[in-house]
Amino acid sequence: MGVIHRKVAGKYDWEGVDTVSYSHPTVRGVTKRVLIGPKDGATGFALRYFEVQPGGNSAFEHHPEIHQVFVLRGKGEVLLGDTWHHIAEGDAIYIGPDEQHQLRADPDGPLGFLCVAPKA
Amino acid sequence: MGVIHRKVAGKYDWEGVDTVSYSHPTVRGVTKRVLIGPKDGATGFALRYFEVQPGGNSAFEHHPEIHQVFVLRGKGEVLLGDTWHHIAEGDAIYIGPDEQHQLRADPDGPLGFLCVAPKA
Repeated sequence: MGVIHRKVAGKYDWEGVDTVSYSHPTVRGVTKRVLIGPKDGATGFALRYFEVQPGGNSAFEHHPEIHQVFVLRGKGEVLLGDTWHHIAEGDAIYIGPDEQHQLRADPDGPLGFLCVAPKA
Repeated sequence: MGVIHRKVAGKYDWEGVDTVSYSHPTVRGVTKRVLIGPKDGATGFALRYFEVQPGGNSAFEHHPEIHQVFVLRGKGEVLLGDTWHHIAEGDAIYIGPDEQHQLRADPDGPLGFLCVAPKA
Protein backbone atom coordinates (compact mmCIF):
# COMPACT_ATOMS: atom_id res chain seq x y z
CA MET A 1 0.00 0.00 0.00
CA GLY A 2 2.53 2.58 1.09
CA VAL A 3 4.82 4.06 -1.53
CA ILE A 4 8.22 5.76 -1.21
CA HIS A 5 9.51 8.04 -3.94
CA ARG A 6 13.14 8.62 -3.05
CA LYS A 7 14.81 11.84 -4.10
CA VAL A 8 17.68 11.39 -6.54
CA ALA A 9 20.88 12.65 -4.89
CA GLY A 10 21.91 16.09 -6.06
CA LYS A 11 18.85 16.60 -8.25
CA TYR A 12 15.25 17.65 -7.85
CA ASP A 13 14.03 14.36 -9.29
CA TRP A 14 12.36 11.44 -7.59
CA GLU A 15 12.33 7.71 -8.29
CA GLY A 16 9.09 6.71 -9.97
CA VAL A 17 8.01 10.30 -10.62
CA ASP A 18 7.79 11.76 -14.12
CA THR A 19 7.67 15.36 -15.23
CA VAL A 20 4.11 15.91 -16.44
CA SER A 21 2.37 18.42 -18.65
CA TYR A 22 1.64 21.83 -17.17
CA SER A 23 0.37 24.13 -19.84
CA HIS A 24 -1.51 27.37 -19.45
CA PRO A 25 -1.31 30.53 -21.57
CA THR A 26 0.34 32.50 -18.76
CA VAL A 27 2.94 29.91 -17.65
CA ARG A 28 6.60 30.51 -18.44
CA GLY A 29 9.40 28.07 -17.65
CA VAL A 30 7.72 25.71 -15.19
CA THR A 31 7.96 21.94 -14.73
CA LYS A 32 5.53 19.86 -12.66
CA ARG A 33 5.99 16.53 -10.90
CA VAL A 34 3.26 14.69 -8.97
CA LEU A 35 5.17 13.31 -5.96
CA ILE A 36 2.11 11.63 -4.43
CA GLY A 37 -1.23 11.32 -6.20
CA PRO A 38 -3.78 8.98 -7.74
CA LYS A 39 -1.07 6.72 -9.26
CA ASP A 40 -0.01 5.90 -5.70
CA GLY A 41 -3.60 5.30 -4.61
CA ALA A 42 -3.92 8.65 -2.86
CA THR A 43 -7.32 10.34 -2.84
CA GLY A 44 -8.57 13.69 -1.53
CA PHE A 45 -5.39 15.69 -2.16
CA ALA A 46 -2.08 15.41 -3.99
CA LEU A 47 1.50 16.53 -3.34
CA ARG A 48 3.10 18.14 -6.37
CA TYR A 49 6.54 19.72 -6.96
CA PHE A 50 6.82 22.69 -9.30
CA GLU A 51 10.06 24.22 -10.43
CA VAL A 52 10.09 27.70 -11.93
CA GLN A 53 13.13 28.69 -13.96
CA PRO A 54 14.84 32.00 -13.18
CA GLY A 55 12.53 34.79 -14.27
CA GLY A 56 9.69 32.36 -15.04
CA ASN A 57 6.23 32.18 -13.50
CA SER A 58 3.36 29.85 -12.74
CA ALA A 59 -0.17 30.38 -14.04
CA PHE A 60 -1.98 33.64 -13.33
CA GLU A 61 -5.22 32.11 -12.15
CA HIS A 62 -7.94 31.66 -9.58
CA HIS A 63 -10.21 28.69 -8.93
CA PRO A 64 -12.32 27.28 -6.11
CA GLU A 65 -9.63 24.78 -5.03
CA ILE A 66 -7.20 25.90 -2.33
CA HIS A 67 -3.40 25.47 -2.47
CA GLN A 68 -0.97 24.79 0.36
CA VAL A 69 2.52 25.72 -0.79
CA PHE A 70 5.93 25.08 0.79
CA VAL A 71 9.06 26.58 -0.78
CA LEU A 72 11.81 23.98 -1.13
CA ARG A 73 14.47 25.96 -2.97
CA GLY A 74 15.23 29.45 -4.13
CA LYS A 75 13.54 32.79 -3.86
CA GLY A 76 10.74 34.57 -5.63
CA GLU A 77 7.41 36.24 -5.17
CA VAL A 78 3.83 35.15 -4.74
CA LEU A 79 0.79 37.13 -5.83
CA LEU A 80 -2.11 36.87 -3.38
CA GLY A 81 -5.09 38.86 -4.62
CA ASP A 82 -3.52 42.08 -5.89
CA THR A 83 -0.31 42.14 -3.80
CA TRP A 84 3.08 40.55 -4.45
CA HIS A 85 5.00 39.15 -1.47
CA HIS A 86 8.60 38.02 -1.31
CA ILE A 87 9.06 34.32 -0.50
CA ALA A 88 12.08 32.15 0.20
CA GLU A 89 13.06 28.59 1.11
CA GLY A 90 11.03 27.20 3.98
CA ASP A 91 8.09 29.58 3.72
CA ALA A 92 4.55 28.13 3.88
CA ILE A 93 1.79 29.83 1.89
CA TYR A 94 -1.95 29.29 1.99
CA ILE A 95 -3.89 30.29 -1.14
CA GLY A 96 -7.62 30.52 -0.49
CA PRO A 97 -10.64 29.62 -2.63
CA ASP A 98 -10.98 31.78 -5.76
CA GLU A 99 -7.98 33.87 -4.73
CA GLN A 100 -6.05 35.25 -7.68
CA HIS A 101 -2.49 33.92 -7.45
CA GLN A 102 0.78 33.43 -9.27
CA LEU A 103 4.33 32.50 -8.26
CA ARG A 104 7.45 33.80 -9.95
CA ALA A 105 11.15 33.07 -9.51
CA ASP A 106 13.79 35.68 -8.89
CA PRO A 107 16.05 36.19 -11.93
CA ASP A 108 19.14 34.66 -10.29
CA GLY A 109 17.97 31.10 -9.71
CA PRO A 110 15.12 28.61 -9.88
CA LEU A 111 12.22 28.59 -7.43
CA GLY A 112 11.08 25.10 -6.40
CA PHE A 113 8.00 24.52 -4.28
CA LEU A 114 5.67 21.82 -3.07
CA CYS A 115 1.99 22.51 -3.71
CA VAL A 116 -0.79 20.45 -2.14
CA ALA A 117 -4.12 20.68 -3.95
CA PRO A 118 -7.35 18.66 -4.05
CA LYS A 119 -6.47 17.27 -7.47
CA ALA A 120 -3.13 16.09 -8.92
CA MET B 1 -7.43 35.49 2.36
CA GLY B 2 -4.01 34.14 1.61
CA VAL B 3 -1.57 33.65 4.47
CA ILE B 4 2.23 33.44 4.50
CA HIS B 5 4.04 31.78 7.40
CA ARG B 6 7.67 32.72 6.87
CA LYS B 7 10.37 30.40 8.14
CA VAL B 8 12.57 31.88 10.84
CA ALA B 9 16.15 32.03 9.52
CA GLY B 10 18.34 29.24 10.85
CA LYS B 11 15.53 27.53 12.76
CA TYR B 12 12.69 25.15 12.03
CA ASP B 13 10.14 27.66 13.28
CA TRP B 14 7.63 29.72 11.36
CA GLU B 15 6.06 33.12 12.00
CA GLY B 16 2.52 32.74 13.34
CA VAL B 17 2.91 29.00 13.95
CA ASP B 18 2.95 27.50 17.44
CA THR B 19 4.15 24.12 18.61
CA VAL B 20 0.99 22.17 19.46
CA SER B 21 0.19 19.13 21.54
CA TYR B 22 1.01 15.75 20.05
CA SER B 23 0.50 13.09 22.63
CA HIS B 24 0.11 9.37 22.11
CA PRO B 25 1.32 6.51 24.32
CA THR B 26 3.87 5.40 21.74
CA VAL B 27 5.33 8.81 20.83
CA ARG B 28 8.84 9.72 21.98
CA GLY B 29 10.52 13.07 21.43
CA VAL B 30 8.30 14.63 18.77
CA THR B 31 7.05 18.20 18.26
CA LYS B 32 4.22 19.18 15.94
CA ARG B 33 3.49 22.48 14.16
CA VAL B 34 0.46 23.13 11.93
CA LEU B 35 1.95 25.20 9.10
CA ILE B 36 -1.35 25.55 7.24
CA GLY B 37 -4.70 24.48 8.67
CA PRO B 38 -8.11 25.61 9.89
CA LYS B 39 -6.68 28.72 11.62
CA ASP B 40 -5.68 29.97 8.17
CA GLY B 41 -9.09 29.11 6.72
CA ALA B 42 -7.88 25.94 5.02
CA THR B 43 -10.32 23.06 4.70
CA GLY B 44 -10.01 19.52 3.35
CA PHE B 45 -6.38 18.93 4.35
CA ALA B 46 -3.65 20.46 6.47
CA LEU B 47 0.13 20.85 6.20
CA ARG B 48 1.94 19.93 9.42
CA TYR B 49 5.64 19.83 10.35
CA PHE B 50 6.84 17.16 12.77
CA GLU B 51 10.30 17.00 14.24
CA VAL B 52 11.56 13.80 15.79
CA GLN B 53 14.53 14.05 18.14
CA PRO B 54 17.49 11.69 17.60
CA GLY B 55 16.35 8.18 18.49
CA GLY B 56 12.73 9.29 18.94
CA ASN B 57 9.65 8.11 17.07
CA SER B 58 6.16 9.16 16.00
CA ALA B 59 3.02 7.25 16.95
CA PHE B 60 2.72 3.56 16.14
CA GLU B 61 -0.73 3.70 14.62
CA HIS B 62 -3.15 3.10 11.80
CA HIS B 63 -6.32 4.96 10.86
CA PRO B 64 -8.54 5.47 7.81
CA GLU B 65 -6.94 8.83 6.94
CA ILE B 66 -4.03 8.84 4.54
CA HIS B 67 -0.73 10.72 5.03
CA GLN B 68 1.49 12.35 2.44
CA VAL B 69 4.94 12.84 3.95
CA PHE B 70 7.95 14.82 2.69
CA VAL B 71 11.25 14.63 4.59
CA LEU B 72 12.70 18.12 5.15
CA ARG B 73 15.74 17.29 7.26
CA GLY B 74 17.70 14.36 8.58
CA LYS B 75 17.50 10.63 8.20
CA GLY B 76 15.46 7.87 9.72
CA GLU B 77 13.13 5.02 8.97
CA VAL B 78 9.46 4.63 8.17
CA LEU B 79 7.36 1.59 9.01
CA LEU B 80 4.84 0.73 6.30
CA GLY B 81 2.78 -2.29 7.27
CA ASP B 82 5.37 -4.66 8.75
CA THR B 83 8.51 -3.40 6.99
CA TRP B 84 10.94 -0.64 7.94
CA HIS B 85 12.42 1.47 5.13
CA HIS B 86 15.30 3.92 5.30
CA ILE B 87 14.33 7.53 4.46
CA ALA B 88 16.30 10.74 4.01
CA GLU B 89 15.89 14.40 3.14
CA GLY B 90 13.76 14.95 0.06
CA ASP B 91 11.99 11.59 0.06
CA ALA B 92 8.20 11.53 -0.46
CA ILE B 93 6.15 8.85 1.30
CA TYR B 94 2.53 7.86 0.81
CA ILE B 95 0.86 6.11 3.76
CA GLY B 96 -2.42 4.45 2.74
CA PRO B 97 -5.74 4.05 4.56
CA ASP B 98 -5.50 1.85 7.68
CA GLU B 99 -1.83 1.14 7.01
CA GLN B 100 0.19 0.57 10.15
CA HIS B 101 2.94 3.20 10.24
CA GLN B 102 5.55 4.92 12.36
CA LEU B 103 8.53 7.19 11.68
CA ARG B 104 11.74 7.20 13.69
CA ALA B 105 14.87 9.34 13.59
CA ASP B 106 18.38 7.98 13.29
CA PRO B 107 20.36 8.35 16.54
CA ASP B 108 22.74 11.00 15.18
CA GLY B 109 20.31 13.82 14.42
CA PRO B 110 16.71 14.98 14.26
CA LEU B 111 14.29 13.91 11.54
CA GLY B 112 11.97 16.67 10.34
CA PHE B 113 9.12 16.05 7.93
CA LEU B 114 6.05 17.64 6.43
CA CYS B 115 2.90 15.54 6.73
CA VAL B 116 -0.30 16.36 4.86
CA ALA B 117 -3.43 14.80 6.33
CA PRO B 118 -7.18 15.39 6.08
CA LYS B 119 -7.25 16.94 9.55
CA ALA B 120 -4.83 19.31 11.28
